Amino acid sequence: MESIGIGLAGFGTVGAGVFQALQRNAELLYRRLGVRFEVRRIAMRHPAKKRAIAAPEKLITTDWSDLVNDPSIRIIVELMGGTEEPLNLFRSAIAAKKILITANKALLANHGIEIFQLAEAANVPIFYEAAVAGGIPIIKSLREAFVGNHFESIHGILNGTSNYILTRMTESNMDFHQALGEAQSHGFAEADPTLDVNGWDAAHKAIILASLAYGFWLNSVDIQVGGIENISPLDIQFARELGYTIKLLASIRSHLDEKIEVSVHPALIPQAHVLASVNGVFNAILIRGDIVGESLFYGRGAGQDPTASSVLGDLAEAAQAVAFPRASCGFKPHNLRGQVKEAHSCVSSFYLRLDVDDRPGVLAQIANILGRAQIGISSVIQPEGKDTHQTHLVLMLHNAPTGAASEAVSQIATLSCVKGKPVLLHVEHFA
Amino acid sequence: MESIGIGLAGFGTVGAGVFQALQRNAELLYRRLGVRFEVRRIAMRHPAKKRAIAAPEKLITTDWSDLVNDPSIRIIVELMGGTEEPLNLFRSAIAAKKILITANKALLANHGIEIFQLAEAANVPIFYEAAVAGGIPIIKSLREAFVGNHFESIHGILNGTSNYILTRMTESNMDFHQALGEAQSHGFAEADPTLDVNGWDAAHKAIILASLAYGFWLNSVDIQVGGIENISPLDIQFARELGYTIKLLASIRSHLDEKIEVSVHPALIPQAHVLASVNGVFNAILIRGDIVGESLFYGRGAGQDPTASSVLGDLAEAAQAVAFPRASCGFKPHNLRGQVKEAHSCVSSFYLRLDVDDRPGVLAQIANILGRAQIGISSVIQPEGKDTHQTHLVLMLHNAPTGAASEAVSQIATLSCVKGKPVLLHVEHFA
Repeated sequence: MESIGIGLAGFGTVGAGVFQALQRNAELLYRRLGVRFEVRRIAMRHPAKKRAIAAPEKLITTDWSDLVNDPSIRIIVELMGGTEEPLNLFRSAIAAKKILITANKALLANHGIEIFQLAEAANVPIFYEAAVAGGIPIIKSLREAFVGNHFESIHGILNGTSNYILTRMTESNMDFHQALGEAQSHGFAEADPTLDVNGWDAAHKAIILASLAYGFWLNSVDIQVGGIENISPLDIQFARELGYTIKLLASIRSHLDEKIEVSVHPALIPQAHVLASVNGVFNAILIRGDIVGESLFYGRGAGQDPTASSVLGDLAEAAQAVAFPRASCGFKPHNLRGQVKEAHSCVSSFYLRLDVDDRPGVLAQIANILGRAQIGISSVIQPEGKDTHQTHLVLMLHNAPTGAASEAVSQIATLSCVKGKPVLLHVEHFA
Repeated sequence: MESIGIGLAGFGTVGAGVFQALQRNAELLYRRLGVRFEVRRIAMRHPAKKRAIAAPEKLITTDWSDLVNDPSIRIIVELMGGTEEPLNLFRSAIAAKKILITANKALLANHGIEIFQLAEAANVPIFYEAAVAGGIPIIKSLREAFVGNHFESIHGILNGTSNYILTRMTESNMDFHQALGEAQSHGFAEADPTLDVNGWDAAHKAIILASLAYGFWLNSVDIQVGGIENISPLDIQFARELGYTIKLLASIRSHLDEKIEVSVHPALIPQAHVLASVNGVFNAILIRGDIVGESLFYGRGAGQDPTASSVLGDLAEAAQAVAFPRASCGFKPHNLRGQVKEAHSCVSSFYLRLDVDDRPGVLAQIANILGRAQIGISSVIQPEGKDTHQTHLVLMLHNAPTGAASEAVSQIATLSCVKGKPVLLHVEHFA
C-alpha cells in the first residue's frame, strides 16, 4: 500500500480542518485514489495554544524547515498566513523538490512571478485551488475546463466577510460598524478585519484569477482597489430605490486587442442580476468566455471545511504528480494581453451622492461641471429635504472614464453649495 | 512545433462547433498548452447535407473506421449520437489505442461498465466533460476538485429543453404542447423531443454523475424516471399558490451506510430555493459534500458552443495524456455504496391533485385511505367549484415511501367520487 508523506505548515483553522478531513475521509481517499496520505510533521508557531482539534504531539515542530528537511515528506501544505515566512518556506521547499499546496492568496498575488519561475525551473508543481473562493473549484475551471476560451469577463464576490457585512447592512439597515461587530461575534470577521473590508483580500484573489486568465502575473500596484468601510446605510437605501444592490465586486474584463481591466470596489449591481442575490458569507464567480458563454459558480468562500475540501482536491492531484510528471507546474505564462489598463481610463457608469444646500440653482451648477466633462446624467433623485437648508442629491451618471468622473467630482466638491465629501460609486451592468 | 492529430466522428451541431472553435482559438490553445490540434479526418453520415459550417472536403469520410485506422490520429472526438455505432467505434478505437472524447451521455449511461473496463485494460484515457450539462465543468469537479468529499446529495436541472418548456408554461400559462412548439421553433428542442421531455436525457446524465460520485456504474433499470409530458398548467398554478415551482429535477442522495437514491422526475421545489430561479435553457447542479458543504454550478447545458468549450477542455487534457501517463482512464470504481435503493422504498413528500365530486364527505373518504396508509396530510386546497358538480382537490402529503403513496393513490382513484386520473408529483425540500 502506497503512502505519501505530508508536512502541514500552519495549524490554524484551515490547517486543523485539513488534518481532520484527512483522518475522517482517509478510507474514501484511498478507495478513490489508491493512495494513503500520512501527515508526518506539523509546524505551528504556538504549540502550547489550546485548540479545538489537537495535533499529535510527536508530529509538532515550531520550525517549518523540519518539514523541508524531512526526506519522508513529499508534499508540504502551507497554511501559515502572512507572506514573508511562507515565501521563505516556498523557496526552501522548491529547492528541496517538495510539491507545494497553499491557500495563501497574498503570497501568490505578491510573489507569483518568483514562485512559479522557481517552480518551473525545479520542475516542482504547486497547487492553490484553496487560495481563491474556498470550496469553489475556480482555479481548476479557469485553467483546465475553460482553457479553450478567451475570457471576456470575470466578476466575483470574493470576500465573504465584506459580503456578510453588506448583506446585513442591506437587510437590517445597520451601519458598517454594527454589521462588522456582528460579523466578528459570529466568527465571520477576524479581530483585525482590515484586509477583508478594505478590498485587498478580494484584490489578491482577483490578481490570481486575472493572471491565470490572461497568462501574466499582474502587479498589484496596477489595479484599482476600494473597500466597504465608507459605505453608508443611506447609499444602500438610495441604491435600492434605484433598483440596485451594493456588493464588493471584483471585475476583470478584456476587450480584444486592448489592455485588461481589473478592479475591486463596492459597486451598485442590478437587483435582478444573479450576483445581487449572493448573500451572507457566500462567494460567487461569473465567467464569460467567448465559447462557453456565461458560467456561474456559487459556494462557501472561506472557512475551515470548504477550504479543506479544496486542499484535499489539490492533494489528490499532488499524489498523481508524485507518480507522473506534469506539463505545467501550476502557472503557464501565455501573455496574450500583457498589460493592465490604467485606472483613470477605465470606463464605468457611476452613482454620485452629494449633500447640498436645498435651494434653486444647485443642480444647474453641478450639471454644468458634469456637462463640461462630457459626462451624461441618466437620472436624478432629490428627496424632499427634512429641514429647509440641506438635502441629498443622487445622480446616476452615464459611462465615463474613471479619471474624468473623479476629476469632475473633485470640482463639484469645491462648490459652496456642496457640503461634506461626495460619494462616488461604480455601477456595474455586466454588459 | 508539436501537433496532435484529431479525428472528428460526427459533424452535427456540436461537431461543427468543435471544428470551428478549434480554428478560432488555435493560437490561444497553442499559447496556453504548447500544442497545436489538427483535425485530420471528419466522419459524417451525410456529406452532401448543406451545413452552416463547412468541413474541408479532403477531410471527409463516411466511414469512422478511417479515423481509427489513421496512424496520424491520436485523439478521436465522438459526437455522432445514438449508441450502437458509437459503441462499435469505442471498441475499435480503444483497441487501436486512440484517446477518446465524447459528449454521448446515452452511450456512457448504458455502456459505461464495458467502456471503462476496456479503457482500463488498454490504458486508454476517455474524457466526457461534455456529456453532462454542456459547459458546466461538473465531471472534473466531482472527480477532482471534490474528490475528498462524501457526496450527500446532488440535485440538478440537467435538461435544457424540459426546463425551457416548464419555464414558458410557468411564465405564460401555456400548455405543454404550445411550449414544446415554441421550443422547437427556437431550436431548443429537436424534431423528436422524446428523450428530452420523457426524462431519459436527464436520467442518462444523472446515471453518469451518480456513478462517478459513488464509484460504480448504475444500471438504468434501477432508477425512477418520469417526464414532463403530463404536467398541466393547472398543476403549475396550484404549485405556485403553494409557494413552489415545478422543475424536471434529477435527485441523487445517499445516507451513510444506506443504498443510494437516484431519480429524475418533475418535482415541486420551493420558490425561494436557488434552483427554482434557474430558467429557460439553463442547467444548474447543486452538490452537497460532507466537507465542502453546498456548491452550485450554473450555465448553459447544451448547444453548440458550451458543449464545444467542454470538448476543448477535454482536448487539453487529452494532449497531456499523449505526453504523460495518467493514474485513471476516466472512471475509477471505488464502490463505497454499491447499491441503488428500490424506487418504492424511497421516501418523499408529495403533491396530489384530484378531480372530485363537489359534495360533503369526499375529503373524508380520501383522508381515510391516506390515514390507513400512514400518510399524513400537511395541507389541503379545494378551490370553489365552477359548476356545482365537480372541483379540484389538492393535497400536500408528508414524507412517505413512494410505493405506499402510489398504492394509496391507486386506491383513491377507484373511489366513485374521484374523476379522471390523479396527479401525484414529488415535492423536494432539499433537506
